[in-house]
Amino acid sequence: MGEFGLIDKLTGDTKIHHASTKKGVGDDAAVIDTGGDEYTLVSTDMLVEGVHFDMTYVPLMHLGYKSVIVNLSDIYAMNGEAKQITVSIAVSNRFSVEALDEIYKGIHKACELYQVDLVGGDTTSSLSGLIISVTAIGTVKKEEIVYRSGGKENDLLVVTGDLGGAFTGLQVLEREKQVYMDNPNMQPELEGVDYILERQLKPEARKDIINHLSELGVMPTSMIDISDGLASEIMHLCKAGELGAQIFDEKLPIDQQTYDVARQFNLDPSTCALNGGEDYELLFTVDPNDLEKVKYMPDVYLIGEIVPAGDGITLHTSGGQVHPLKAQGWNHFEE
Amino acid sequence: MGEFGLIDKLTGDTKIHHASTKKGVGDDAAVIDTGGDEYTLVSTDMLVEGVHFDMTYVPLMHLGYKSVIVNLSDIYAMNGEAKQITVSIAVSNRFSVEALDEIYKGIHKACELYQVDLVGGDTTSSLSGLIISVTAIGTVKKEEIVYRSGGKENDLLVVTGDLGGAFTGLQVLEREKQVYMDNPNMQPELEGVDYILERQLKPEARKDIINHLSELGVMPTSMIDISDGLASEIMHLCKAGELGAQIFDEKLPIDQQTYDVARQFNLDPSTCALNGGEDYELLFTVDPNDLEKVKYMPDVYLIGEIVPAGDGITLHTSGGQVHPLKAQGWNHFEE
Repeated sequence: MGEFGLIDKLTGDTKIHHASTKKGVGDDAAVIDTGGDEYTLVSTDMLVEGVHFDMTYVPLMHLGYKSVIVNLSDIYAMNGEAKQITVSIAVSNRFSVEALDEIYKGIHKACELYQVDLVGGDTTSSLSGLIISVTAIGTVKKEEIVYRSGGKENDLLVVTGDLGGAFTGLQVLEREKQVYMDNPNMQPELEGVDYILERQLKPEARKDIINHLSELGVMPTSMIDISDGLASEIMHLCKAGELGAQIFDEKLPIDQQTYDVARQFNLDPSTCALNGGEDYELLFTVDPNDLEKVKYMPDVYLIGEIVPAGDGITLHTSGGQVHPLKAQGWNHFEE
Repeated sequence: MGEFGLIDKLTGDTKIHHASTKKGVGDDAAVIDTGGDEYTLVSTDMLVEGVHFDMTYVPLMHLGYKSVIVNLSDIYAMNGEAKQITVSIAVSNRFSVEALDEIYKGIHKACELYQVDLVGGDTTSSLSGLIISVTAIGTVKKEEIVYRSGGKENDLLVVTGDLGGAFTGLQVLEREKQVYMDNPNMQPELEGVDYILERQLKPEARKDIINHLSELGVMPTSMIDISDGLASEIMHLCKAGELGAQIFDEKLPIDQQTYDVARQFNLDPSTCALNGGEDYELLFTVDPNDLEKVKYMPDVYLIGEIVPAGDGITLHTSGGQVHPLKAQGWNHFEE
């Protein structure tokens, strides 16, 4: 039934006891009313060796960094400010204190750059494999919170950064791993792919976009972070808001390196952008009246608009064709 | 260097950026000032298969229950009220949806009994083994927060419930596992050990004690939950408050079943109580003026008192001997 179906099933019948629980499962972060002028936001994610990362090519410092970033991204997706994190790590005996230290160096680096405080967690043994679980805590002014569900017809659909890079970067890393395993004397061919490798190994969260929108006085009507792939996230926004969407293939922001490497692997660059995942960019909707304010924002791209639910969710190609958008998600795409 | 040394090293040089971070690493929960009349408390713990639990004898529903309890206990140890949790679970393919459902049944049951809302988390794959990471979020009125560090000379040292049960229960489970592995046709001998098995498999957190103290108008001067063993927790309180303590061996609350089973295993019952761990009771100090209020509290036991740091931390036996108290902790004790 897939991850979303499973989570829905297992957490669906949760009874809410506290009025302070404003939003539980179903958005990028839980929303708690702790009594002040701001809501408290809580998001958690677990990274598992062999599932979310491969120790043969992931530098430990980057892994620590990324484990923080993926959680901060969820707080920013609520239009919030991330302020604290807790980090729990399980490691096997083969891990040295020096190796753990490398992971924590990445964690501290992310904390420093994003101005976040490490306030708790634990380090424990595991019989096999490395597991990192991070919880991020943030705040947002009550009147400024943005949910997945706030979009409305005619809103503009906007993404930040460029898409598909993390996925194509992963393809390169997997290829070079295979080459190395076949012949350990071969040097990896990583020239000209530095950008997409960084997208995969050391992504950033778009705190800068949240700050810029605030400076411009623009509040998105709905927002989500792009962790599973653009198509999947568009569907989340449309489902939460009971809306449809149309997006334009030629408007998808794709870096030249992503494009070239996708072609090398005989992959359609648009498919990589739509379904690759792990880009940790933001997808949001804005009122059409805000077009003037956002259209010249750096690193922000208009990709389509919100339509009535009955019109479905469609992808329009440059040739004038219209396809129903399919969310294959990250795992599916690899099969 | 041990878990505490490691965590100290890795998290020690954390820079704090936000005034809202009142307390980071170093107490039962992190303390965040979210702007209202109450502090927000955050605690997180990870349970790893083969390290914290053995799937051969741990019922999945109890495992889900316990994974919540160990985190709620940390919130109560700050004199707080636990209100929300997030749960992240990593499972291997051998896990059926039904098995996951059992774990979540235990999680939901704990949420119901302790009036806590499940607000987030994720379910992901693992290549081997089950990992459960829970984060608990709670609140406490600012003037009622209790840290590990608040004790002072002449304060009374108090524990709740009885100690050593979870540890002796584990000994029985390990013995019966060995018997079963030697001969799968043997029936386990679990008669007369139901209480200590429950202490190990399905512990409770002492929300009732926190509520009762509040009704009596007693605020502990310092508090910690007993997860690693009484001796270790006494040392934490003394270190945090720069204090010493004397405790009386004959005052340690030990259930008859714990006592009998310890003897069966040729273990000293007091040692089980002092170093066994996993009882999830509370250890706290109260001002001597509150003696009248707490001395008749059900399930609360006076075990000693706080003395100047220079007098050390000592255990007084019924024979009149005085020993320096040693915290062997859970793992150490098993070696």
